[in-house]
Amino acid sequence: MIVTVTPNLALDVTYELDALRLGESHRVRTVTARAGGKGVNVARVLHALGHDVLVLGPAGGATGDAVRADLEAAGIPHALTPISGETRRTLTAVAGGEATVLNEPGPRLSPAEWSALAASIPRRDVLVLSGSLPPGVPPEALAELADARTIVDTTGEALRLAAPRAWAVKPNAEELAALTGTSDPVEGARLLGARTVVVSLGADGLMAVSGDAVCRVAAPEVVSGNPTGAGDAVVAALAAGLAHARGAVVTAPVAGDAVVTGLGTPWPELLQDAAALSAAAVLSPVAGSYDAAAYERFRHAPRLAR
Amino acid sequence: MIVTVTPNLALDVTYELDALRLGESHRVRTVTARAGGKGVNVARVLHALGHDVLVLGPAGGATGDAVRADLEAAGIPHALTPISGETRRTLTAVAGGEATVLNEPGPRLSPAEWSALAASIPRRDVLVLSGSLPPGVPPEALAELADARTIVDTTGEALRLAAPRAWAVKPNAEELAALTGTSDPVEGARLLGARTVVVSLGADGLMAVSGDAVCRVAAPEVVSGNPTGAGDAVVAALAAGLAHARGAVVTAPVAGDAVVTGLGTPWPELLQDAAALSAAAVLSPVAGSYDAAAYERFRHAPRLAR
Repeated sequence: MIVTVTPNLALDVTYELDALRLGESHRVRTVTARAGGKGVNVARVLHALGHDVLVLGPAGGATGDAVRADLEAAGIPHALTPISGETRRTLTAVAGGEATVLNEPGPRLSPAEWSALAASIPRRDVLVLSGSLPPGVPPEALAELADARTIVDTTGEALRLAAPRAWAVKPNAEELAALTGTSDPVEGARLLGARTVVVSLGADGLMAVSGDAVCRVAAPEVVSGNPTGAGDAVVAALAAGLAHARGAVVTAPVAGDAVVTGLGTPWPELLQDAAALSAAAVLSPVAGSYDAAAYERFRHAPRLAR
Repeated sequence: MIVTVTPNLALDVTYELDALRLGESHRVRTVTARAGGKGVNVARVLHALGHDVLVLGPAGGATGDAVRADLEAAGIPHALTPISGETRRTLTAVAGGEATVLNEPGPRLSPAEWSALAASIPRRDVLVLSGSLPPGVPPEALAELADARTIVDTTGEALRLAAPRAWAVKPNAEELAALTGTSDPVEGARLLGARTVVVSLGADGLMAVSGDAVCRVAAPEVVSGNPTGAGDAVVAALAAGLAHARGAVVTAPVAGDAVVTGLGTPWPELLQDAAALSAAAVLSPVAGSYDAAAYERFRHAPRLAR
């Protein structure tokens, strides 16, 4: 089972508008809402791929109820931790193909609420810790949960502290640069001191750095669409690869294009799959889903970057 | 008692942001939410002025519950009609003093739900029908409720149909021009065929047109602030004036600056008060409230427009 924890779970609301102009008043054409947050998106993708998943995170108030009801309707197993605050919303206003995103800060969690969430994590094959921390939760909270079968996708101090303990971390290039002070992702990954850093380079594909070894794959093709959730698809592919290796996991060695991970799956193949799933997610209009036909096409068209 | 009906009641949510840029992702600094919609704002102002009010409108789902709870907390009497749909939200994103507003369309009301709302209107001194109609409610719905002690503040076909039946209607200059096809508010008001049309002219003050008579007052002073709710304050002042005349009301004659309304209050005085309350509402950061000290100052500084 792959368990995903979304510390700052949300109800993702999307407004469709004919146009959006600053300082003006608008009629919203359609409103859609669904359970969201990065760990929820990862679980959605894994669920669609046929994996056994469990969604964890805090949920409170009427918005928390709406998140629970949406996961229920989607048939995605969940065990959300009740909190006294009201679950946050994220708002995406889409007009003319352009998305403007407003992320509410989220409710403050008490130490007891965070402890209850941490205690709710069951035995699992893989743990995914994904997204920002809510107010009230200190940056070391994720590091305390991370182990050698954990993938961490967060930012800032929480990422820096969790990196040495996780199996892999997945910042994007900007997040990595902001944290390490260098725009070179290879150097940045090494400065982070993680076992393995998988860096998403957007249209330039993916890179995995572990010690002296670097593995890189290009994006399968240039796709345009909805980039929200592309990184979550990468994490989903990594989690699927790690879940596939049910035995003990050693630090993943990466050297050139041919060395295996210690997981049974060579890194190039794993990254290739992650890049394919990520590009297929861009082709889907909502985060947490992917274009299945495109995924099949992309994953069978390997083109390793040089 | 003054009864206000808000056919498309809402939860008004305000996001404060450091900046808002189209196509980008933002962290929301603070989130506030309160019961909203034009009739609710009118009732808030009247309640603050010490009038006996009752708020009516449809309310459904968790958002409807939040509206009810907020009215309760504010001590404003209400008798909302339960509906199966979920009450809408309006979202105002405030950044750098500029407000960008996104209005959800609102839930569809069944004919039975609208009938239940109409039937919930009790005996009253004044009826205020304020705001847009929700999906499912035909434009003649307000006309069927309007009588000689009713003030209507809406737009389009619903305004045109209700105008001949109400005591007064209150479009702003743009709404009136859009409906009548003329940019001259005096001509537009006559084309509308209403007993009395009170036109808000923004910074240029207020004008009342009834048959051949026109009465106009300037804004008490140039104020800058939050224009949302300025029109609702005008309606509140008119409702207070009409409530003051508890007896039978005839069509309000308006001629020059000195003729009375048939209400006991001369129109110039009534408009002067409405302009003062409206300007005081602009000085308040949220719709439905006003700056009480500014209102006192403005109402005692009459300056009739020529």
